[in-house]
Order: sequence, then C-alpha cells, then structure tokens
Amino acid sequence: MKALSISNGKVVMAETDRPMANGEALVRVTMSGICNTDLEIARGYANFEGIIGHEFVGVVEECSARPELQGKRVVGEINAGCGKCDLCTSGDPRHCPERTVLGIAGRNGAHAEYLTLPPENLIELPDSISDVQAVFAEPLAAAVGIADAVKINAETRVAVIGDGKLGLLCAAALHFLSPSLVVVGKHPQKLWIAADMGIRTMLRRRIAPEHYSSFDVVIEASGSESGFSMALDLVRPRGTIVLKSTFHGTPTWEASRVVVDEITIVGSRCGRFRPALGLLESRSVAVERLISLIMPLSDGVEAMRIAAQPGVLKVLLKSAE
Amino acid sequence: MKALSISNGKVVMAETDRPMANGEALVRVTMSGICNTDLEIARGYANFEGIIGHEFVGVVEECSARPELQGKRVVGEINAGCGKCDLCTSGDPRHCPERTVLGIAGRNGAHAEYLTLPPENLIELPDSISDVQAVFAEPLAAAVGIADAVKINAETRVAVIGDGKLGLLCAAALHFLSPSLVVVGKHPQKLWIAADMGIRTMLRRRIAPEHYSSFDVVIEASGSESGFSMALDLVRPRGTIVLKSTFHGTPTWEASRVVVDEITIVGSRCGRFRPALGLLESRSVAVERLISLIMPLSDGVEAMRIAAQPGVLKVLLKSAE
Repeated sequence: MKALSISNGKVVMAETDRPMANGEALVRVTMSGICNTDLEIARGYANFEGIIGHEFVGVVEECSARPELQGKRVVGEINAGCGKCDLCTSGDPRHCPERTVLGIAGRNGAHAEYLTLPPENLIELPDSISDVQAVFAEPLAAAVGIADAVKINAETRVAVIGDGKLGLLCAAALHFLSPSLVVVGKHPQKLWIAADMGIRTMLRRRIAPEHYSSFDVVIEASGSESGFSMALDLVRPRGTIVLKSTFHGTPTWEASRVVVDEITIVGSRCGRFRPALGLLESRSVAVERLISLIMPLSDGVEAMRIAAQPGVLKVLLKSAE
Repeated sequence: MKALSISNGKVVMAETDRPMANGEALVRVTMSGICNTDLEIARGYANFEGIIGHEFVGVVEECSARPELQGKRVVGEINAGCGKCDLCTSGDPRHCPERTVLGIAGRNGAHAEYLTLPPENLIELPDSISDVQAVFAEPLAAAVGIADAVKINAETRVAVIGDGKLGLLCAAALHFLSPSLVVVGKHPQKLWIAADMGIRTMLRRRIAPEHYSSFDVVIEASGSESGFSMALDLVRPRGTIVLKSTFHGTPTWEASRVVVDEITIVGSRCGRFRPALGLLESRSVAVERLISLIMPLSDGVEAMRIAAQPGVLKVLLKSAE
C-alpha cells in the first residue's frame, strides 16, 4: 500500500505491506488531514520514523473483537495505552507512559491506505457527517477539550492568539460558550474566515495598551514564542493562559510575571471526540472553511511541502477509491 | 531615622526624615526580615529606589483613622491598592495595576525605624506571638497561600524543590495538609532542619527515575532555572507545578512537555495573613529554626551581604529600643 513516511529523517512516499490486524481493528483510510505536528515530526521532532498522520476518517475492514464495526465509517482516538498501568485503569490512557500514538509515537499513522488501532479507540460516524467534516474530529476534539480544562462561559473574556488552522478551530469551537471571544492574528485574509463565522477578530498590530491585562483566558495557538509573550501581555492578573500549540524548542519567558501576577498556565493537548462530533453533526462549526486543498494520498510529499507554506490552512489527503 | 536604602543602584544605610502619617498609619518597626526579593532588588530588579524591606513587625505610633490601633503590635499586608479600580473594589488590591508595595514598588519599606501603611493593611498581634515569630507572618502567609491556589490534602503527593528559607517555610506550612510531602534540596545541613520538623527530605542527587512523573503537585521554591526543569521531571501528567520564587531573568523551558503532558503551572506570590498567624499562634511551624542571624538595623548593609551568602537562611534586623 501507499504510505507517507519518515525514513532516515526524510518525508517519502513509500510502498509498504498492508498492516495485519493482529487483534486490533484494520481500517481502510478514506481521508486524512495534515496537522502542524506532522510538519514538526518531519523536521525531526519526537525522532519518529514510520508512517505519519493522526487525523483520519475510514471504513473498518476487519475487527474480530467488535464485529459490529465491520464496514462502518469511523474516526479514532489516537492514543493507545498499555491497559494495565494506574493511568490506563483509571480511564486515562492518553497519559499512559507506555502509550503509542497514531503516527506520532511507536505506531504507524494515518497518511496511508490502511491503519490499525485498538477497537475501543474507534467511534462510528453518523451518515450526517461527511468524510470532509469527520477528518476534523480529532483537532476539533482538542479544541473543545480546552473547555474541559478551563471554565469558559458567557461572561469569560477570551482571546485566541493565532489565526492558523488551530487558532481558527479553537475560536470556532469556543465562541459558542463566550460570544465575546476574539481571535488575534497577523493575517487579514485568515481573520476574515473567523469574521465570516461570526467571530470577533483583531489584527495583532492593532493591539493597544487598553487590551493589556484585560482577558480572563488567553489561548496560545500561534505556535510561536512571541505568541506566548503576547499571552502574558493580554491575560489579567490571576487569569489563565492555555498552551495549545505543541511548538518545540525552548522559548524564554519571564517567570517573575507569572509569579507576581499569579497567572495559571494550562497545557492542553487532546480532547473527547463525542462533543466534537456533536458540533459537526449540528453544523455548528463550518470546518470546510478551513480547507486549503485536497490532494491524492500519492501526492503526499508535495502536500506536506504546500501545508508548510505561509497562509495555507488545512491540506487533506484522499485515498484512491 | 536610620533606613536601609537603594540609592543610585547601591545598598546604603541612610539617615532620613521620619515619614509623616499623611492619613496612613505610622508604625515604629521593631524587627524586619531580609527576603530574597530584597537581594534581587539590590541587584537591580524592579528598578526600585528608596527604603527596601517588606517583612516586619512593629508598634503603631499614629493612626487617626483607626485610633484603637494606637500602641498595638502589628504586622501588615504589603500591597496597597488604589481603592477605586475593579480589582480593588472586588477585594483584590494585591493585583491593582496602580498598587504600591512596601519596599518593592512606589513605597518606602520596612528596613527602617518607621514605616507607613494604610490602616486597613494592619493586623493586630496577640501577645502569644513573639516579634521573632511575627516577622515571619508575611512569608508564611505566602507559603500558606499555595493551598488557596492548589488543592492539597492527605492523598496529594507533594514535592517542594529548594531547601532555602522559602522552600523550608513552604514545606513547614503545607506538610500538615499532606504528611507525605517531601523537600528536595542540595544541602544536607538545610534538609536536616526540615527532617527535624518531621518533614520527609530527599537529596537532589538521589533523585532516581522512579521519582519521575510521580508527584501531583511540585512547588518550585529554589529560584533557579534547574529547579523548574526538575519540577517538569517530577510532576505527573495532568499534575500542577506551583511557581513560588520570583526569580528574574528569562529561563528556557520545554513548552511541548507542558502541552503533551497537559501540565498546569500556577504562579503564587502572596497569601492571607490570618491563617499564617494561626499557625504561629499554635506553634505549628517552628519558624525560629530558620533564623541564621539577628543584627541591629544599623548593620543593615553588612546583613544584606551575609544574607546573600550560600547556606545562610533568614537574617533579621532589629531596631534599637
């Protein structure tokens, strides 16, 4: 089968054997999405070698443990715990120290014709959610997950820093909870997408002193060091900064500001799929607006190159029928 | 009067006029404590010029707004808000953007024969608390304040990083809530003080892989960059790091670990005086064990030099009778 892989540190389109189910579910991938984490893995983060990709929708081909899933359209939770440790038995395999993660750690990923995952990771899709929507389930779940980590309601003053696909998705998922939410970004053309969804926007260069210390919750989704520094400017004393981007490297920060202003910083990675599927089913989040390009899986190397370009939002890969 | 001051960037013992009450309370200082923040201000942090010092005990000489305080022994909350902004009117003058802070920002401090503070900042002391104990009220309140910011109970696995006066005080204040609390430090002679208070201790070089990711709450009180990095090693996934030291400069950190492990970082600065006075009154925290030296106020410059030496814990300044 075709598979977009990291091999000796390079992104290549490899021809590999179809994986064996081996007690897991075998899924034929119909569509997959390129995430910034894929681009970072391609740059060497996590020392991952193998098939990349973790946002997908597909059809179950084989699943002896849950035969009722056979032939069903599914999305899937990407973390697979050991099933035995304290975290797994307490229902949190996402943080199992021995976990594998689809296309990120110890497990081949989704930019391929087939993948395998534990049967319990799969969630059946209703017909009302299209493939193009469903492929956003994982990143949308991560965006919705912010509201599990931090209290956000109609009174909460929320700013999202970053007008890339992650920032726009966070804003789209959370502005229902806080209608005054504002997206802060550098690119008028990207902010336009948010504005068109009914979300307030602000150009980064328009930030003025009266905006400083005025937000209860600031979500850093720009993936840049300057984004974190701006979050410190915008958050009120005793407010919360949510770190959403898994940017790598070691940014500097003013520890004294965090202490003096008694700020809380919350790291947030994944979220639950069910609420995200609810938003997709009710057409509350127009994820289609975030798609820049759909390419065949066989053009995966070129798709990765394009996805890394400034101004490009979501690039999807479509398997041949 | 004598006053330990920063003048043109240097620590000097100045002879200045006694301050006027001007509607505030005039307090004759009997004893004051040198805090690491004083040492940092002496190194140029906060660009403060004037009388330093914010840990004190004294006697009210003049207080027209609260005449019942006249002649009473007091300690005092160090932040003075504007009284008009949203934060002040909601009861949080500690974060008022226009606030002055005793010996730290816009207000002369406590290493002097007299100081002034708003009458509402003063708290009368019971006779059962000695001056030597009472001078620890402010840093002890800050230590107790951690439990306001983070839930700590008998089941919570807590590590305190740092065996300096701040770390020891945090450990002493919090091990009543979590008896399994452990102090991690570099100095056997300082850890001995904690052990003698019945607190578990661990030498930093004895930290082994089995300690990694094993604490629910890690309190960084070492004031060093390596302390924060160790906190990231010790905290469990979804655990909390409390930043207690106002260390300055811009440490580097691995943002991706905070996001991937969904860690919460909480900055904590000040706390409420009442619970701290309760601990002192019940003799629950043997703060006297943390005193390295008591010197006359007139030797303040020398006292600052000694307080900055490795291995030295609390240095107190005593005004002449």
